[in-house]
Amino acid sequence: MRLVVQKYGGTSVGTPERICHVAQRILETQRQGCRVVAVVSAMAGVTDELLRLGHAVAPQPIKRELDILLSTGEQAAAALTAMAVNELGGTAISLTGAQAGILTDRNHTRARIANISPKQIHELLADDYIVIVAGFQGQTSEGETTTLGRGGSDLTAIALAGALNADTCQIFTDVDGVFTCDPRIVKDAEKLGEIAYDELLEMAGSGAKVMQSRAVEFAKKFGVEFEVRSAFKQVAGTLTKEETPSMEDILIRGISLDRHQAKLSIAGVRDKPGIAARIFSDIGAAHIIVDMIVQNASIDGTTDISFTIHEDELENARTILMPVLGELGAKRLNTASGVAKLSVVGIGMRSHSGVAARMFECLGRAGINIQLVSTSEIKIAVIIDEKEAERAARLIHAEFGLGRLLPAASATQPLA
Amino acid sequence: MRLVVQKYGGTSVGTPERICHVAQRILETQRQGCRVVAVVSAMAGVTDELLRLGHAVAPQPIKRELDILLSTGEQAAAALTAMAVNELGGTAISLTGAQAGILTDRNHTRARIANISPKQIHELLADDYIVIVAGFQGQTSEGETTTLGRGGSDLTAIALAGALNADTCQIFTDVDGVFTCDPRIVKDAEKLGEIAYDELLEMAGSGAKVMQSRAVEFAKKFGVEFEVRSAFKQVAGTLTKEETPSMEDILIRGISLDRHQAKLSIAGVRDKPGIAARIFSDIGAAHIIVDMIVQNASIDGTTDISFTIHEDELENARTILMPVLGELGAKRLNTASGVAKLSVVGIGMRSHSGVAARMFECLGRAGINIQLVSTSEIKIAVIIDEKEAERAARLIHAEFGLGRLLPAASATQPLA
Repeated sequence: MRLVVQKYGGTSVGTPERICHVAQRILETQRQGCRVVAVVSAMAGVTDELLRLGHAVAPQPIKRELDILLSTGEQAAAALTAMAVNELGGTAISLTGAQAGILTDRNHTRARIANISPKQIHELLADDYIVIVAGFQGQTSEGETTTLGRGGSDLTAIALAGALNADTCQIFTDVDGVFTCDPRIVKDAEKLGEIAYDELLEMAGSGAKVMQSRAVEFAKKFGVEFEVRSAFKQVAGTLTKEETPSMEDILIRGISLDRHQAKLSIAGVRDKPGIAARIFSDIGAAHIIVDMIVQNASIDGTTDISFTIHEDELENARTILMPVLGELGAKRLNTASGVAKLSVVGIGMRSHSGVAARMFECLGRAGINIQLVSTSEIKIAVIIDEKEAERAARLIHAEFGLGRLLPAASATQPLA
Repeated sequence: MRLVVQKYGGTSVGTPERICHVAQRILETQRQGCRVVAVVSAMAGVTDELLRLGHAVAPQPIKRELDILLSTGEQAAAALTAMAVNELGGTAISLTGAQAGILTDRNHTRARIANISPKQIHELLADDYIVIVAGFQGQTSEGETTTLGRGGSDLTAIALAGALNADTCQIFTDVDGVFTCDPRIVKDAEKLGEIAYDELLEMAGSGAKVMQSRAVEFAKKFGVEFEVRSAFKQVAGTLTKEETPSMEDILIRGISLDRHQAKLSIAGVRDKPGIAARIFSDIGAAHIIVDMIVQNASIDGTTDISFTIHEDELENARTILMPVLGELGAKRLNTASGVAKLSVVGIGMRSHSGVAARMFECLGRAGINIQLVSTSEIKIAVIIDEKEAERAARLIHAEFGLGRLLPAASATQPLA
């Protein structure tokens, strides 16, 4: 009998009606001859409300207690889902993360899964139970409740699918799958039938908020294939899996856009060891998340270092950096908010040249200025004016024929 | 070092501000040289909201899942309270009912405490922790979460106080203590300094909703003294304890009023074994709670059976009884809603005669008709028109000098 692990996010279980819909979906899966383990998130809004309460009683709440507080959201949703399945005639039982055998390290609020002992789940499945697991949580070997960080229910589902050696892992969400670009921006954006782990990772890190990155990394590490699909429609989604040779025929898998960015450039920094560390340790200590970092080649002993952060953090970062510019030997600090990061992602880039040049040319023809460039093996990211971002996304999308998903061979023109 | 068990109800932890106030109160107790275990209820409204969600997904939710759902309310409140204590510089840790060692039977939603293993609490107290326990819940020997029924946090506190052999058990609530009558009805109602378990039980069963009856029964069984006091004021409350000889000097401890009652009388029932059982098993099967039951002496082989229920259940009860009147050999069914139960309670009644007569005379002088009478060793309850109920309470309160708490000896007039 096939074993299916399903994950339903906060929006999918956001109201009693939606919970009943999820219960129906679970039962349909069982009726198709499958054993089902369903991982649920807290009902939409619950985690934020619990966080609000926590910060209202303690601006910096003790993390052990924060984990207990937050984990109740998923426990309640799991119990409600089990009730709904039973109401519809099924036989379901809810488990906490601890009962599901999810053992973590002691790193409260961002715990990592250390081990999974799915003995109880196996027994319940053998007894024909549908098992509903509270996502986002585990426990330490001392029995302390931990949580896995925002979006941790994805990780719960993928880790359980791996540990249970499930035949299928389905991540139900409020989008239909992973698209070549956000369909709200690009009208002919297409849903991808499949995507490689690395591609999804790069897209997740670039504003396409489909999945928690740690969950994708975990899936990659343990080879857990999973499908991202709609909780509301009965249509196939996007299968994420190991890359295959045929995947490389597609030059660009997708485009993602990360808005509300700010760019900081420190000009004329002394080019010697420790300078970059000094800058980013100060920024990191203030809990400011740095995205792109670009350092230009050194000219006469000085260099320019640029980086991007969320624009909300710009004032904060400026306050930190201004007093230390002298120590860094820097000439000046230039900052700009209102910029966006546009990324093109595809493992096809590894074997096909000319992608960057073609992208830059396309933007150049449209008069869109590129302010920063950063690349990985399978991604090219540029910082541009946010006002131009959507137009740029549409142009690049068309340039690479993503609406029609042309094979890479015919789309590539070796320009660079 | 003194060990204090405190219990804070849902209103006391109803907002982040109130949780901070509770945290202060807990810390003050510790600073007075005490070890503190605090039991908390769910924030006011949370349990009702969880119940609403539960019934929205399943009209008759599976009880195992209902227990998991409801228990999250107290777990969240306990975590928030622990955060607040830590924020104020204390060292607190929250425990679920299971972690606190509360072992129950398998009777989900109304579990009874089977045993308490407070090993972990003892260890934490020895390490100078303030221990915050999620009330209302325990677990079975199989590790399944159970709840103790409405008001179960009182029971948690009293059972822990007993198991820990605490020096003091304080039940913090939104009233100042137990009064001779509801102060909203009787202006000169006085707060009682002490009350016997049995008196509080009779009052709790008669509309004075101060404490869960099972908690009081548990306290009586294990001799756990507890004080009911205000969570908002720094004033002494009412100590509940074993009765002492001096308590009997007080003829009447208090008066309680139970409104919205309905009265049903089945006239001319065949007076033979099994008839009463038949009536009340049908009523019980419909989950209708019967309060008073009065059966008159048999006259020529038939008798009248009267009983009271909540007026909301009257139609339901009538529908059940009408078809079976013939089988019971009954002549007719008379029903009346809009009646109230007025009870006077006091262990002094055991050793002083004339209380009933004096109560009836007082009502008679005021032209208030008594429709039913039921008595226990320490209580006299009458059913009267609800419109007369508050006036009756004030008259009886004055008649027995409760506003001034006269000793029984001088107040008694042997009339019956």
